Amino acid sequence: MELKPIGLIHSPFKNQAGTPIQPRFAEESVRGHVEIFEPYVEALDDLEGFERIWLLFHLDRARPWKPKVIPYRDTVERGLFSTRAPARPNPLGLSVVRLLSRQGSRLIVGGLDILDGTQLFDIKPYSPKFDAFPESQAGWLDRGQVTDQADKRFDED
Amino acid sequence: MELKPIGLIHSPFKNQAGTPIQPRFAEESVRGHVEIFEPYVEALDDLEGFERIWLLFHLDRARPWKPKVIPYRDTVERGLFSTRAPARPNPLGLSVVRLLSRQGSRLIVGGLDILDGTQLFDIKPYSPKFDAFPESQAGWLDRGQVTDQADKRFDED
Repeated sequence: MELKPIGLIHSPFKNQAGTPIQPRFAEESVRGHVEIFEPYVEALDDLEGFERIWLLFHLDRARPWKPKVIPYRDTVERGLFSTRAPARPNPLGLSVVRLLSRQGSRLIVGGLDILDGTQLFDIKPYSPKFDAFPESQAGWLDRGQVTDQADKRFDED
Repeated sequence: MELKPIGLIHSPFKNQAGTPIQPRFAEESVRGHVEIFEPYVEALDDLEGFERIWLLFHLDRARPWKPKVIPYRDTVERGLFSTRAPARPNPLGLSVVRLLSRQGSRLIVGGLDILDGTQLFDIKPYSPKFDAFPESQAGWLDRGQVTDQADKRFDED
């Protein structure tokens, strides 16, 4: 299956080191914008009113994947699919960000954890009915250490 | 960007009509399994302990996309990106399902809303810290009608 970008994500982050590892740990004040390409602009209608949106994007600046990695929030190796590490067999990123406003083909978003210039593949509305399970147990992540910013471990060489 | 399947999803649903529109509306008793291909099996380690996982998969049986659709939970047209409709520019599906057990290369999952034989591209652990925003406003979806099962509107012709 071949993916084509529907837009580009613009953020203050140029490198993984120092970038929040999840939107949850990004300052609300970290703003950026998503610029949607022309054929897709009309499909943004009705997003106003959604407080958050999912962005599916290209993790294009990660190392080749390995079955085991030491994730940011742990000190021992974990199976890759039990982590949100960026070096994956299919480098698809998934982040929920705040939708602050829409200006034509541009979405202003807050709480970004995405690198500048990243290709966007899809936008989905965030719905607590579909997506929020606040009591869900999260394995090693529930016991993981608190590390909120990325370092260079998954960067390209 | 080219995606390659890491496994296949097996479920009781052969057609969209009658399939739950989201895992939230699937009976817990609707079980299926995910069969992971050999190079990726070791990367499943440490998933035990996670109550839910994200599946990213190929929406391979949807019509070509349109900028506006009448979604399952409404009666008027909405911008596609404000919906979870399957007919998208990049047909990527995103569902959170219950992880019931792992048996080697197989994950037994519950609450499925995915068609049988669907290609899987990624698994991510569900973390309430990252993913659960129970109070998030959800625009037209908050006012949408209750329709829990898909019909044929997004099926291939």
